This record gives sequence, structure tokens and C-alpha cells, in this order.
Amino acid sequence: MPLSARNRLSGVIEDIQRDTILAHVAIRVGEHLVESVITRRSADELALKVGDHVTAVVKATEVMVSKP
Amino acid sequence: MPLSARNRLSGVIEDIQRDTILAHVAIRVGEHLVESVITRRSADELALKVGDHVTAVVKATEVMVSKP
Amino acid sequence: MPLSARNRLSGVIEDIQRDTILAHVAIRVGEHLVESVITRRSADELALKVGDHVTAVVKATEVMVSKP
Amino acid sequence: MPLSARNRLSGVIEDIQRDTILAHVAIRVGEHLVESVITRRSADELALKVGDHVTAVVKATEVMVSKP
Amino acid sequence: MPLSARNRLSGVIEDIQRDTILAHVAIRVGEHLVESVITRRSADELALKVGDHVTAVVKATEVMVSKP
Amino acid sequence: MPLSARNRLSGVIEDIQRDTILAHVAIRVGEHLVESVITRRSADELALKVGDHVTAVVKATEVMVSKP
Repeated sequence: MPLSARNRLSGVIEDIQRDTILAHVAIRVGEHLVESVITRRSADELALKVGDHVTAVVKATEVMVSKP
Repeated sequence: MPLSARNRLSGVIEDIQRDTILAHVAIRVGEHLVESVITRRSADELALKVGDHVTAVVKATEVMVSKP
Repeated sequence: MPLSARNRLSGVIEDIQRDTILAHVAIRVGEHLVESVITRRSADELALKVGDHVTAVVKATEVMVSKP
Repeated sequence: MPLSARNRLSGVIEDIQRDTILAHVAIRVGEHLVESVITRRSADELALKVGDHVTAVVKATEVMVSKP
Repeated sequence: MPLSARNRLSGVIEDIQRDTILAHVAIRVGEHLVESVITRRSADELALKVGDHVTAVVKATEVMVSKP
Repeated sequence: MPLSARNRLSGVIEDIQRDTILAHVAIRVGEHLVESVITRRSADELALKVGDHVTAVVKATEVMVSKP
């Protein structure tokens, strides 16, 4: 279902760590490693595991810009 | 200065649109286009313009995961 | 495509206001009115208009709790 | 004290899970279940428990829109 | 009404700029200037103006840490 | 490296609590206590500890305003 969030970075889960309430997911996106903290419940419902092809999704208002 | 935000996506500004309060910045990061909405004041203070080498920065708690 | 964001509130667009960079969308969800600020580009790409059946989506870490 | 956050969804706590740093609160809002992740300290200071009448509060810039 | 958001910074509005959808509010908090972007509707409903004593409110999960 | 996030509150770490995935950092900023929830990995990489001089960083779109 189309979503207003503008940023989609497709990659492969390289590492996932589950705790009681949250899970930490590291996604390999080309040369970058994108890290996400989501609920443990979502990680379980999506059955996330290392090697899964997934997409990191980010709302544009959450992205900052840094310039050297 | 090192920052706790875990996600850094380096790229080049492909498009920038300035409004009264905000600015919309589109950053080419490899095959992805990362879009950011920041304040107009920050865009001006950083003197952001097309062609600038910049980094998109995102806190891990702002990243969602989607799985087909 | 399943998404980790846990909150989905289905409703009908009651009002939409478009500006240069952003759009303000008011969604009737039962007795509540849910307001969202998204990019103008997303509002246009999704062709959002009054009367559309849509879903407001919110990441759990963005929800606060207030108690009287 | 009036707050700028535009979204208030009143409901009843259906489930609460406390961990070391965070707490996961599930709030029944009509036919929807709203899930919130807040600090354990706030959950304790507000003495949140199942059955409490509370309000989920969300800033408009944190709400995305999905359209089928 | 008590809110789970843990950060409250009390100060005085030093500058406010209203646009169609959003407003930019600059709040003097001791030696710091705290800047907030909220909806124009909230700025109007709260009747925000220069000189108002207000509180900047931030959820703990939105705060990053930088170390020199 | 200059960052678009507009809010910087300099202070001293008064308390830090590490869990599996996250860390809770309390920073004394003048008369205010600013609380931040970041990843455990960032807390470790920055080697955060009580007494450190740090800066709390917040994007303007994450700041709400409350008025009595």
C-alpha cells in the first residue's frame, strides 16, 4: 500500500538483535549500513532474520543534512 | 563533533527547494534518492546548493523496516 | 508491503491543504480527527483529496502518553 | 497545559510491558489499538497500569499517510 | 495533564514566523535558543506571540548526544 | 561537521544507564535536566560516562510548544 514516507533504501539484513521491547536491525544498503530500532513485536511479526531482503523506510522530516 | 545518530548516507545534492520556513533537499546516494525536509534557516546557514557533497543523517529510532 | 510501524488508523480525508513543500491532511478516524503533515510531493503522488479512504501510520516510538 | 501536538486519541490501557529503560503501552482507542514506546521512568511516574484512561499524543509531523 | 515526554525547557518566545501550514518559534531558554517547528494551526490556537512564557517539550527518543 | 539540526544544548552527563539495545542519558543543562534515549552502540562508541561534557542535539521539527 503506497505510503507518504519518501525514503526507501533497499538492502539485506546483516545483523538483528532482539530485546524484550525493541529490536535492533542492521541493513546493508550498498556501501552503507543502515541501522533501525523497531519494536520486538514488529520484528517478530515480520519474522525478520539475517539475509532477508528488506527496505528501510524514513519520513523526510526525520532526515538531517550535514555538510563538511 | 561525533554524534550519536547512527545513520550517515553520503551523497550529492541533486535538487533543493526553499520556502519561507522549510527547505526540501534531495540527495543522490548511489542508486537511491534521499529526501530531507529541514529549516530554511539551516539550509541558508549551511549554504546548501545543488552539487554540494553532503551527508544525510538519521537517528536509528526514526528508521522503519518493510519486508515484501 | 508489510511495515514495522505499529499504528494504523483508517479513516477518510476531511480536509487537505497544499503548500509549496508540505501538505496538511486532516483524517476523520471515528470520533477523532487525525492531522498529518507530509511533503507536497507525496500528497500529489498519492493524489490525496477530500473523501479518500486512507490510513494514518505512526511509529510506536513517536507516540506519547498523557494521563489526567 | 495546552500543547502544540495536534493528535490526541483517548482510550484505555489494555497492556503494558516494562523493561529497564523503556515501556511498551497498548491503548484501546475504539476499534484501533494504539501502541506507544515511552521511557520506563515516565511509565512509573505516571503510574500507568492496565485499565487507566489515558490519551495517546502525536505530533502532526510524525504522522504518515497510506492510500490503498 | 501530565505527559510522558521527559524534556521541558521553559523560556520566552523571542521570535515567531507564521507560514501557511507551519510556524517557526524561537524560544529563549537561559543562554540557549530553542527552535521549534509546529503547525500554524497550533500556533494560532495557542495564540503564540513574542514575549509569551512557554515550554519547549521534547520526547527523550528524539534527543541525540554529541561529544567533542 | 555542521549539521542542520538547530537545537544544541550543552551540558554535563549526570546519569547514564545502559541496556542491551539502548542507553538512557541524563544531561544537566543549567537548571534543566535533558534526557536522551540513544542506542547502546552509540553510547559505547562515544564512550559516554558521568561527568562528560556533551551536547544534546534536537531537530526543530521534534520540538513541541506548551503554553500555560
